[in-house]
Parts: sequence; C-alpha cells; structure tokens
Amino acid sequence: MYRIAILQGDGIGKEVTKGAVNILQAIGDRFGHTFHFSYGLIGGEAIDREGTPLPEQTLHMCKQSDAVLLGAVGGPKWDNNPPHLRPEKGLLQIRKEMNLFANIRPVTFYASLAASSPLKPHVIEGADFVIVRELTGGLYFGKPSERRVEKGEEVVVDTLFYKRAEIERIITFAFMLAQKRKKKVTSVDKANVLESSRMWREVAEQVAKRFPDVQLEHMLVDNAAMQLVRSPKQFDVIVTENMFGDILSDEASMLTGSLGMLPSASLSVDGPALYEPIHGSAPDIAGKNKANPLATILSAAMMLRLSFGLTEEADVIERAVKQVLNAGYRTADIAQHGDFVLSTTEMVEKVKYAI
Amino acid sequence: MYRIAILQGDGIGKEVTKGAVNILQAIGDRFGHTFHFSYGLIGGEAIDREGTPLPEQTLHMCKQSDAVLLGAVGGPKWDNNPPHLRPEKGLLQIRKEMNLFANIRPVTFYASLAASSPLKPHVIEGADFVIVRELTGGLYFGKPSERRVEKGEEVVVDTLFYKRAEIERIITFAFMLAQKRKKKVTSVDKANVLESSRMWREVAEQVAKRFPDVQLEHMLVDNAAMQLVRSPKQFDVIVTENMFGDILSDEASMLTGSLGMLPSASLSVDGPALYEPIHGSAPDIAGKNKANPLATILSAAMMLRLSFGLTEEADVIERAVKQVLNAGYRTADIAQHGDFVLSTTEMVEKVKYAI
Ligand SMILES: CC(C)[C@H](C(=O)O)[C@@H](O)C(=O)O
Ligand SMILES: CC(C)[C@H](C(=O)O)[C@@H](O)C(=O)O
Repeated sequence: MYRIAILQGDGIGKEVTKGAVNILQAIGDRFGHTFHFSYGLIGGEAIDREGTPLPEQTLHMCKQSDAVLLGAVGGPKWDNNPPHLRPEKGLLQIRKEMNLFANIRPVTFYASLAASSPLKPHVIEGADFVIVRELTGGLYFGKPSERRVEKGEEVVVDTLFYKRAEIERIITFAFMLAQKRKKKVTSVDKANVLESSRMWREVAEQVAKRFPDVQLEHMLVDNAAMQLVRSPKQFDVIVTENMFGDILSDEASMLTGSLGMLPSASLSVDGPALYEPIHGSAPDIAGKNKANPLATILSAAMMLRLSFGLTEEADVIERAVKQVLNAGYRTADIAQHGDFVLSTTEMVEKVKYAI
Repeated sequence: MYRIAILQGDGIGKEVTKGAVNILQAIGDRFGHTFHFSYGLIGGEAIDREGTPLPEQTLHMCKQSDAVLLGAVGGPKWDNNPPHLRPEKGLLQIRKEMNLFANIRPVTFYASLAASSPLKPHVIEGADFVIVRELTGGLYFGKPSERRVEKGEEVVVDTLFYKRAEIERIITFAFMLAQKRKKKVTSVDKANVLESSRMWREVAEQVAKRFPDVQLEHMLVDNAAMQLVRSPKQFDVIVTENMFGDILSDEASMLTGSLGMLPSASLSVDGPALYEPIHGSAPDIAGKNKANPLATILSAAMMLRLSFGLTEEADVIERAVKQVLNAGYRTADIAQHGDFVLSTTEMVEKVKYAI
C-alpha cells in the first residue's frame, strides 16, 4: 500500500489533482496496487479555514506519507495579505520543513504540440533536458528579508544565502542525474557579479572531479535565459540557484507551448518527496473545468517512478499522455485555431482510456 | 562640439566601437557637427596596463565628457582573477560612480530579421517595447557580498538592497517613458516571495497615481520570463530590478534573432549618460572582423537622440540600419543559410553608405 498525501490547494489545484488521483486509481486497478489518499489543506484555503497557510496537521500528514501530490496555491483574494498569511508562504514552508532541496523539472518536446509553441519547430524538435533547481536556500530563504529605516530613510533587504554543503548537495545530485542521461551538466550562475555564484562555480568544479564521465559547463544566467530560447537542444541537466531556477523553468515551459504540460518533483534529503505541476492556481479559469490536468498527471507519473520505483506504471501514464496528444486531443491552453477543445474531466477520461 | 568618451574595452569591443565612431563621423560630416573623441581604458586591458579595471583617469575623462560610448569588457584571460581585478568590476564601478541608475534597452522587431529569430514570425511581428533596468542597486550592489565561516561551516551571502527612493526614481522614469509611448508599464517583481519586491510593488502603485494616463500592471518575474517568449507584443515599458533586468533583456534579444542587434543607454541622475551594446566581448570571434557592429551603431544613435537632442541624426542612422538589413546584408550572427555574410568593417561601410 502506498500512502499519498493530496494537497489540492487553491484555484485549479482542486481540478487537476482530482484528475491525477483518478489516473492513479486506474493504474492501481490495472497493476494491482493500493493507493491510499489523505487530504490536507494548504495555501489560501488553509488561511481561510485554519488561519495559517500550512497547518501543523497538514505538515504532519505529509511527513507520515510515502509521497505528496500538490495542486497549486494562491489567488487574488489573498494578494494583499501580510507576508506570513500569504498562500505561497505555505508552499515555501512545506519545502523547507520537508527538506525538499532538489526540484526537478523535466522539459520534454512533444512533436504533436509543436504548433502551440511560440518557438520554431527546428529549434525545439528533440529538446529533452531537466532543470534541477535548488529549492530550500538562495534568495528565497536568506535572512534578513525585511524593511527597516536607515538614517531616516526606508530601505529594504533580501538575502541570497548558502552554506557550502547546500551547494554541494544539489550539484552532486545534478551530476548523478546526468550520469543516467546524456552526461552533461550546465551549471548556471552569475559568477561575474555574485560572490555566491563564485562559490557555486568552485563547488561545481570540485564535484565534477568525482564524475569524470560527466561533462561540466558553466553558463551565466543571462546567457542561459537566451540559450534556452535560442538552442535548447544543447542542454541535458541544468543546475542552478532557487530564484534563477524559478525564472528559467517557467521560460523553458514555452518549448512545450504551455505551462500546463510541465510536471515537477521535489526530492528530500531523507523523507517523502513532493510532486506538483509547475503551473500556478490560474484563478481566472478556476472552477470552470478548463484547466489542463496533464502536468499534474505527469507529476503523478514521476511519483510512481521516483518515490515508488514503479517504472512500468510511470511509463504507461507517460505513453498514454503522448497517445492522447497524438490523437489530437487538447485542452484550451494547448489548442490551436480549429482544434476541438476538451474540458479538464474529458481530458482525464481520454488519458484513463489510453492506460 | 560634442565630447564623446570612447571606452573600447576587450574582445570585439574595439571593432564595434570603431564602427560606431566611423558612423558618428559620417553623421558629423553630413550635418555639420563636430564630435570630439577621447579614448580611455576599461576592463581587462585596463587591468593589464594599469592594474585596475577602472583607472581614475578613465572615470575622470568620462565625467568630463558629454556622453560615453562603451564596447564590451571581459574574457577568459581574467576569469580567474580575484573579484576586484575582474573586467566586469570596471563596468559595475563606472555605472555606480557615474550614477547610471536607468538602463534602457529597446527591443525592436525587424521584419527583415524574422528568419533569424528562434520565435515564430506571428509571435514577434510588430513587437516593440523597452526594458528599463535599475542599474545601480539591487542584488548587484548590496552589502554584504562575501564568504564567511559560521559555526565552522563555510557560507556565502549576497544582498539585494534598495532604498525606497531608488525604487521610486526608476519607476518614475519608466512611467515618464511610457507616457511618450504606448502608455503601459509592466512592473516585474517577485512579490510573492521577496520583501524588496513587495516594496517595489507598493512604490509602483504610488507612482502610478501621478500618471493617471498610464496603465500599470504587475507581473511576477517567472511569468514575465514566459510571457516574453509567449506574447511579447503585450509589452510597452517593462521596469524591473537590476538582476531581473539582466536576465530578461538577454532573453528578449532573441526576438531580433541576435544579441548583436540590441543597443542600450544608461542614464545618470545628473551627469553624462553611457551607451553600450547589450552583447558581451565575444572572445571567440574577437579580432576576426566578424562581430556585428549594429548594436553599437544603434547605441550611438540613442546617444545622438537622448544626450544631444539630435533627433533627425538619430533617425537617419536607424533608418540606414533598417535599409541595410532590408537589402539583405548580414553579419554572421544574423545570417541564414545561403546569405552572403559581411565582415564587421563591410557592414559599417554599408550603413555609412546608406546615411
Ligand atoms: C508560488 C511561488 C512561490 C513558486 C516559486 O516561486 O517557487 C512558484 O513560482 C514555483 O515555481 O513553484
Ligand atoms: C558584464 C556583466 C557584469 C553585465 C551585467 O550583468 O550587468 C552584462 O551582462 C550586462 O548586461 O551589461
């Protein structure tokens, strides 16, 4: 039996996690696995009902589970809340509390979606890389992060902070991943300006010595933002700081035409991992049965593979998604003019049927 | 008489500034202006010859000038130097010392270059926006920026720091610019995570009240990185923090197909402004007469317009560049298979001829 904690969150989070649970159940039926789902509050809804974006109970439940599946958090309703009462705080807290240091964001080209990408087909055809984003440090978590008054003037400060060991851990992880792939690591930094990036680069060099079969390349973050659009096929594994990874992975989603296609896994040092689509809560289409459930379904597939070692089952889901796309089924976000557009639940049914 | 300080810098910096000086002279001849050029060292060559990336003398000369034209700095030769002896330090210092708080990076679509962009024509056709990057604060300049040992562990820190007045100044500048354009400001931040971004957003709201004819929109930086690729036509003026602006403007250069096309102006609070292409020193093609001089030539046009008020002269240069591109002339970076490729000096001649 596999215990899965489901955190639906806000906006389209409910709809897309429901879809993924549906698919997991279908996989359970077909392969004879029992998945046990328990539900917890996080984000805006948790603020409304429990007065905090990450209730103790939710965190406890997640830690007791074998893996966590999260939808998305946030919405305009809470945008003007004080920092500690914002939905995103719940997400940042759970990442920190569960030690989810390695965020893995695979970017895969789907031939059938080439039309919905803003990039030319020859640029993206065959692109296949993974962004490894450090997730529990960097500019997101450094202290101080505050306003204060200096010499009568209001000033504000955020801090990019790393322990050397934190940098080493994520870079080592990236090398291990590259070893199983195309054996190339692109370490992205801003070493010509930031001291933290100079340490990052130094550590990358050191770690590389332990992986003689993997090629290491350094790339400045401004250049990386350009290269992702210019020739994404050059990449295998990209490893970078938290904020840089946030920016670059959203940008990279455009290769597949929509944020609605990209899954992610956040791995822990020792405890259960968390899986979530990289898209947000999309308040504008929430509750309208319009959201693309594929990123969450693909996140569930990552869970099967990485947390439970159920490789075949994961393959079945990924193949089903490809098949459905090849057959021309589209949700609104990936539809082209003239395409027949499916609702969230219809898309889930198509994938289920293909399993 | 206009006194222009020329800082050639490293790599292709020499070749591209030479091209721009050539064009300025042609403009002077045609319109009866006298441009006086004085030359100073900066970057790697300044380190080699003077032991510092920004000699006092260079800074003094720049401050005494009416405007500064810079090529590019940096190269592998100095990559392993200590931070204070790196070429980029010279660039950061001159920005700080001359108070160049507003970096303006116009992104213009050239119909004739659509083929060399990785983006689909319908995505970029007609795109025309300006990135206003804060240039003397933020993550680039905050202190501390250092390594230290905490509880026996090596740690590293960089700091994103702003005074409220610095944020207000750059956002006000963006609004003034938008007033003369399509009257829309997109303020890019990461307000769901950073305290500095929350102040940024607050200040943007306040400034907006003084510009009732300009529309303000907030966008998270990860979303902005995506939207720049997905639908760049939505933008008019983008205003953002130093590091965010660095990343987004290199990304945006892909609309025109090459970094080699994008000029920039860095305006000061009170003194002379500095103009530079947004590309780097490209050590791999340095000295080979292969570099694209157009970004530097277009930077010189910005100088004529913004520093000297020579609007017609600036228009003449910009029209000449368009004409040359329309005629099919290309340097290697913007050439397509089958194009006849010009050298740097040949391209400069073509532009000169079109003036
Ligand atoms: C919601 C937000 C805090 C989050 C982040 O910035 O990490 C999101 O953009 C993501 O990438 O998971
Ligand atoms: C060379 C480097 C320090 C510089 C920067 O990061 O500002 C460059 O990338 C730029 O954009 O002008």
